[in-house]
Order: sequence, then C-alpha cells, then structure tokens
Amino acid sequence: MRKFPAPIHNLVAAFSTLPGVGPKTALRYVFALLRQSKSDVEYFSRSMTALTRDLTVCKLCKTYSESELCEICHDPRRTTEALCVVAEPRDISTIEATGAYHGRYFVLGGSLNPVEGVTPDVLNIRELLKRLETEANLHEVILAFSPNVHGETTMLYLSKLIKKLNRKTTRLARGLPLGADLEFADEITLGESLSGRREV
Amino acid sequence: MRKFPAPIHNLVAAFSTLPGVGPKTALRYVFALLRQSKSDVEYFSRSMTALTRDLTVCKLCKTYSESELCEICHDPRRTTEALCVVAEPRDISTIEATGAYHGRYFVLGGSLNPVEGVTPDVLNIRELLKRLETEANLHEVILAFSPNVHGETTMLYLSKLIKKLNRKTTRLARGLPLGADLEFADEITLGESLSGRREV
Repeated sequence: MRKFPAPIHNLVAAFSTLPGVGPKTALRYVFALLRQSKSDVEYFSRSMTALTRDLTVCKLCKTYSESELCEICHDPRRTTEALCVVAEPRDISTIEATGAYHGRYFVLGGSLNPVEGVTPDVLNIRELLKRLETEANLHEVILAFSPNVHGETTMLYLSKLIKKLNRKTTRLARGLPLGADLEFADEITLGESLSGRREV
Repeated sequence: MRKFPAPIHNLVAAFSTLPGVGPKTALRYVFALLRQSKSDVEYFSRSMTALTRDLTVCKLCKTYSESELCEICHDPRRTTEALCVVAEPRDISTIEATGAYHGRYFVLGGSLNPVEGVTPDVLNIRELLKRLETEANLHEVILAFSPNVHGETTMLYLSKLIKKLNRKTTRLARGLPLGADLEFADEITLGESLSGRREV
C-alpha cells in the first residue's frame, strides 16, 4: 500500500469501510475506476451524495423512501389487512421478489441482540404497537425474520406483545428449501417440514 | 431489485460497474453506506471526485501521480542504472513492498493481447525506447510481467527491441513459491527452478 498518491490512498481507505472489502479489493476497485471515463466516475460520486441527500425514512413503515410515504405504503391496491414485519429495509425487496404477498410492511430496524446493544428500545417496537392499536382493519401480523438465534428471539418477543392486542401472529414456514438433500437436513427443519406437510 | 427508491437503485448500478461486484454485493455496499454517517458518505464521494480531478500521469514513468513527476522518479536516491518495466501502475506497489529494488520504473500500460486490441502501438513502447536512447547511464532493463501468455509475449517482444539498443535485459526468476508443494508444481516451473538452483 506504499507509494500511492494521496487520491488513490484516500479512496482505497473509503472503499475499505464497506463490508467484506479489504485493501486489495479496494485497490482493485480504485484501478477499475481509473479506467472508467471521468464522467462515469463523477456520476458514481454524485449518486453517492444523492443517497444521503435524497433519501428519508417512510413515516409509516420506516423503510428508505424518497418521499414522506414509501411507494408501498402509498399504494391503495395494497391490502391493509396484513402487515409483514421485517428486520431491515432490504428484506422488503426480497419478499417483494416472490410476488406472493400483497399487504404492507413494517421495518423493525434489526433483530434483538442484547450483546451488541440491540435491545427492544433501540428497535421500532413502540411504533409497531402504536400502529397495531390505530389500524383496526389489520387482522394478521406476519413476522418475517431469519430463522436464526436473533430472529427467533425477536419473533418470540414480538408475538407475546402482539397477542395482547388480539391480532393473529404468523411466521414463515420452516421446511426443506428447493434442491435440498433429505440426508443433510437438520432434525428441527425436517421435523417441522413433516408436521407442516401438504397434500399433493 | 424492484421497489427501491431511485437513489439506492442508481448507486447499486454504479457499484455494479466494479469488477466482481454483482447486484447483490452492490446492494450490500449501499446498505452499509446507509448505516454510515452522512459526513463519511460525503467524504467517500469527495474522494472519488478527487481521483479524477487530482491525478495525472507521471511524464517519465507513466504511473499515476499528483504532480508532473511521481515520487519515485523524483527521488534522487533511486539508482538510474536499472529500469523495471511493469504492465500496470499497481505492479509498482507490489514490487516496492518487497524492498528488494531501488531503481526506477516504467509503466507499459498493459500486456500485449492483440485479440482484445492491445497491440504494440497502444502501449507506451515508443516512450520506453526513447527513454532508453536518452538515458546513457541505464544498464539493465528488468521486465517484470506476470508469467502468463500475454506477459511472456510482451517480454519476448520487448527483449528483442531492447537488445538492439545494447542494454542488458532480465526477467523475474521462475521457481517454487514459498509454501509450495513439490508434488503439485508444473514441469516448466520445476525445470526452471532446478536449472536456477542456488547453493545453500
């Protein structure tokens, strides 16, 4: 990393702050940019400034949005009967890609992880409960968290709170993913995919 | 990739132009930036603009530099007796990291690859020959290219031209890298590391 001019060195340092990017990858990115046209690099730079300048948080669902209400919250064709609670904004696009859900979303802002300081008061739990209290039309709350320790803890915590408000709480089905091998499935997954079996 | 606000979408597209970055990695980078402070993202953006604005090419060795002459060409402690010819500017830092070379460099701008349009006239070959003609003090030209098809072709091509100018031409030694397994070494490498063996 020695003997590089300051502009290269600074940009390598900036790229190295991204997840999974070490100095070698960062340097590769910088040299790739040096091969791009000046206008392309300036467009890249402007897109980055626009990210912090033009993005705000949807006041209803807490996802990133360009206006006060995000596209989904603003869409009248979306059913108001179901609310899908996710950990992060990017989970919305993952679920949207399935095309299987037509309700609205709520971004909690993470999964419970007290060791790393993610306690209930850090997450948007108060806002979620307030929304459930005001929206009488809402019948079902789908908890769409990853089935790992933190996701499971969050779903358990939320389901207890939501049950007090007399709302149906569901979670994503556990089972064998497409292309999986029965031999290598863990006992819990296989057990739950047996009890949740479907008629064909 | 649906349902993302334009600022996220545009920056994902920009990140996707980098080598080895697909839409999923690009999205991961963008969400990482969204978690950074506004001033950090702006610093990143400014570093990117500075890259095209503040960098020029050293008039002597053709590497990226902030001034007319790069730090190495400008350094009087560097010997003028040897010149190390490399394909790309980043190769300079790789060789500098060894601490084993104290001469100057010359960046050819790539390796010969006629199929992809890299013919001798695209590279800085004319400038290299001109430099060899003017610098009478220069005794040895080290060709430090990667030992692959394009690198070997370039070294062969250059060595023929340089020999006409009565300069000693050398190339990096071939041999077993540190930690290598004799069993898996290819015949050419092993053959050359035998003929280039050293007394211990």
